[in-house]
Amino acid sequence: MADSWQECMELGISIARNAGKVICKALQNEQSVMLKTSPADLVTETDQKVEKMIISAIKEKFPTHSFIGEESVAAGAQCVLTDNPTWIIDPVDGTTNFVHRFPFVAVSIAFAVNKVTEFGIVYSCKEDKMYTARKGKGAFLNGVKLNVSGQTDITKSLVITEVGPERDPKILKTFFTNLEKLLNIPIHGFRAVGTAATDVCFVAAGEADAYYHIGLHCWDIAAAGIIVTEAGGVLMDTDGGPFDMMCRRIIAASSRAVGEAVAKHIRAFPCARDDEQIGVHANGN
Amino acid sequence: MADSWQECMELGISIARNAGKVICKALQNEQSVMLKTSPADLVTETDQKVEKMIISAIKEKFPTHSFIGEESVAAGAQCVLTDNPTWIIDPVDGTTNFVHRFPFVAVSIAFAVNKVTEFGIVYSCKEDKMYTARKGKGAFLNGVKLNVSGQTDITKSLVITEVGPERDPKILKTFFTNLEKLLNIPIHGFRAVGTAATDVCFVAAGEADAYYHIGLHCWDIAAAGIIVTEAGGVLMDTDGGPFDMMCRRIIAASSRAVGEAVAKHIRAFPCARDDEQIGVHANGN
Repeated sequence: MADSWQECMELGISIARNAGKVICKALQNEQSVMLKTSPADLVTETDQKVEKMIISAIKEKFPTHSFIGEESVAAGAQCVLTDNPTWIIDPVDGTTNFVHRFPFVAVSIAFAVNKVTEFGIVYSCKEDKMYTARKGKGAFLNGVKLNVSGQTDITKSLVITEVGPERDPKILKTFFTNLEKLLNIPIHGFRAVGTAATDVCFVAAGEADAYYHIGLHCWDIAAAGIIVTEAGGVLMDTDGGPFDMMCRRIIAASSRAVGEAVAKHIRAFPCARDDEQIGVHANGN
Repeated sequence: MADSWQECMELGISIARNAGKVICKALQNEQSVMLKTSPADLVTETDQKVEKMIISAIKEKFPTHSFIGEESVAAGAQCVLTDNPTWIIDPVDGTTNFVHRFPFVAVSIAFAVNKVTEFGIVYSCKEDKMYTARKGKGAFLNGVKLNVSGQTDITKSLVITEVGPERDPKILKTFFTNLEKLLNIPIHGFRAVGTAATDVCFVAAGEADAYYHIGLHCWDIAAAGIIVTEAGGVLMDTDGGPFDMMCRRIIAASSRAVGEAVAKHIRAFPCARDDEQIGVHANGN
């Protein structure tokens, strides 16, 4: 079946590039913004339109495949990863950036079989950067091989994180306590550019040493996850345990040492798993 | 004298582009990193080399002009703005990014006469983005006119800030309390990309609605300051009062309303003025 997945990957790259064109064109117009789970959880017609475009283009070629897409789940679709070949899609990662035209907006497409990610595609469309990785075959940016920084010393690390759309004061308190602890180690600095997929790709490219995030979703990091591991990086839970795509917690790091140092200093807040909150988004909670 | 300043500006743009080339070439090599005021306040040979290169190229044409340069001040030079034509230079804004190859690194060159900024140049060299503005003549990115977003509602704003190299626990506490207050308003989100000059240019380009920072230096924002005002934005102190380039506090905003809303929610920590701490950097304090 290996050849078949290669065909899937080529289709995915082509679709991601087309989706990027639609997004870049839409950036020239005023956005009509709707809210999802909070006044900071934005969605636009472009998110919905691009997801439909991606799914229908894939279904045409692979009608038996399954899909997990950010906007489909928000509209009430199931978010369960089965053994069936499954495409995990974030049509516009960085919707807030898209609304503001802040330059990081990515199309994220991952493909998993038997619950294992076979390939990942992140297309940062304003920058025209196509990040790709296939299991066991390395990670690439516009065709050039990627390697993590290899940094093992947390005190010399540049760390990326995002607050996301959460505005619950208790969650914000945890977010800032975590960041404060890291800066007090000290670390070289922190960055926040507003797109989980691109953030993880910065680590894959060796332009940052770690990324952590609590509260994100599987579609944000399914594709970037394999990109960073294929670039020599590690993925783990924010408690230092094994990474689980559905549990809404991630550390992506240049080395196990840096990942574990981040894990040691941060605490997670409770999040319902992605595969246990069917319909929650649809209810606006 | 207007023509003369135009000649200065053209020289500045040409020098900024050349400096950007030197920086981009240096990015291909491993950096030898030295520390300044804290374990997170980095400097490299490239910062020092590029500043010398910029100053000597200007001195050759304008031997009577004055200079305020980040690395010259760190080496003990005075940081006083007189009425004499003065070039205010940050050779590598975003040194931590430079060290990590994180994609935002800018050359910042401003020119002031009688203490008034006549023009500003910010060259984001990895992105090849040349931001320029001349007093009364508008702001431009690669020759295309810039306009701020015009956003007046803080709850719909994307806000940028930076923690900088400060690692004093009390200062970090103030930093996070400020950010927490803003997110609780709520705002759409915050971003931190690690270069003050580029941050302010994001506001000028309408890609973010406000930027604030406490503890930065005049060379970080002298050039970007005129770029954002010429793009229709406003500058103010973090207390909402008049902006003073030497007082190490800034709000740059898309509108007075958004700037004042930011000012209302944040508090500054004490910083010695840039023009009152001669030799402090040289002592490593």
